[in-house]
Amino acid sequence: MKKAVVLYSGGLDSTTCMAIARDQGFEPYALSFSYGQRHTVELEKARQYAPLIGAQDHMVVDIDLRKMGGSALTDDIEVPKQGVQADEIPVTYVPARNTIFLSFALGWAEVLGAADIYIGVNALDYSGYPDCRPEFIQAFEQLANLATKAGVEGQPYHIHAPLIDLTKAEIITQGMSLGVDYGLTHSCYDPTAEGLSCGQCDSCRLRLKGFADAGLQDPVPYAPVS
Amino acid sequence: MKKAVVLYSGGLDSTTCMAIARDQGFEPYALSFSYGQRHTVELEKARQYAPLIGAQDHMVVDIDLRKMGGSALTDDIEVPKQGVQADEIPVTYVPARNTIFLSFALGWAEVLGAADIYIGVNALDYSGYPDCRPEFIQAFEQLANLATKAGVEGQPYHIHAPLIDLTKAEIITQGMSLGVDYGLTHSCYDPTAEGLSCGQCDSCRLRLKGFADAGLQDPVPYAPVS
Repeated sequence: MKKAVVLYSGGLDSTTCMAIARDQGFEPYALSFSYGQRHTVELEKARQYAPLIGAQDHMVVDIDLRKMGGSALTDDIEVPKQGVQADEIPVTYVPARNTIFLSFALGWAEVLGAADIYIGVNALDYSGYPDCRPEFIQAFEQLANLATKAGVEGQPYHIHAPLIDLTKAEIITQGMSLGVDYGLTHSCYDPTAEGLSCGQCDSCRLRLKGFADAGLQDPVPYAPVS
Repeated sequence: MKKAVVLYSGGLDSTTCMAIARDQGFEPYALSFSYGQRHTVELEKARQYAPLIGAQDHMVVDIDLRKMGGSALTDDIEVPKQGVQADEIPVTYVPARNTIFLSFALGWAEVLGAADIYIGVNALDYSGYPDCRPEFIQAFEQLANLATKAGVEGQPYHIHAPLIDLTKAEIITQGMSLGVDYGLTHSCYDPTAEGLSCGQCDSCRLRLKGFADAGLQDPVPYAPVS
């Protein structure tokens, strides 16, 4: 089996992405980041679930994006609860986050001798986040082949974004068909101290709508509406 | 004055690069990394020297590249002392290092509202390291403008590599004309416990040759040849 590095947050998208990598014949090496995010519970879920869904190894890299700030996820900016605005970049955007994440994935891939990297960005993300768009993924793939010893020596990298054209409902349906247990994923940006999802942040709203559109019940527990 | 993020290791090249950014009218924001490198003395020099050469701020980001390994600088591979091989990528190459460094610089630039990033790569580096070549720098600039809110909203980034076509001797000569005190820089990959440069690693050899070619004496202290 060929190795692939899978960017893996423990959330719905990256967990599905991991299952797809596996289904496509890769041995997944899961890569997570402790980057000063508010929702560290997602890392606990990631640690717990990675081996269960077949990750060969799981690396958690510590990087302190809080030093930089600039986002509701890493700075003292309130996470909005008013729902998604279609035509603006949300305050939960973290400057250069996916560029940083893919850079580490590239480094690890080179060390592992892997030529494939999976990232679970999708259409709903790239309506808001610039670093989730197809043209960003393509530009990173070009960069990867110029940046590395492996690329220079003729082992081209492939950045896979298998969810990029899928709706949340389609992602969930595909994940279910591959046996993903969504009860062991976490999406909320602003969970309670007990780890219950808030049900009101952008991420929860998108997730809940995805399950509703797919005609399914979301198995994760939500905090009672106050 | 416009802000610029300058990748700054405390070494000869990045210190010269900082002086050039300042000379070109930018207010430099110095960015260093504690990445598990053997030569942590360079970070001490960087902390000490950054304010003296006019950095407005200096951020040191902790990232543990040792977890990944794959380089003589971050893994248990011996630093070679046989001199530079012209036609192969050295074992001191750190997988995806400049991609990772520039990604953080991009994130900080976006938070600061800066559109300019300086990196001190040069011709001698890119003869060996793939992520020091002009085509890599150009590819990163393209990526930056697709990756960020600022790029999407029409504030294009410029990745400056002012040393890229210079020899070491030319870099030193230019730095001297801008008032750089090279006695307060550090280049050695494998210094003694007292912080003396070894004089034999690739980095020392290139540095010493640069000073010799420029007809100057290197002011840093070297360990006696054993």
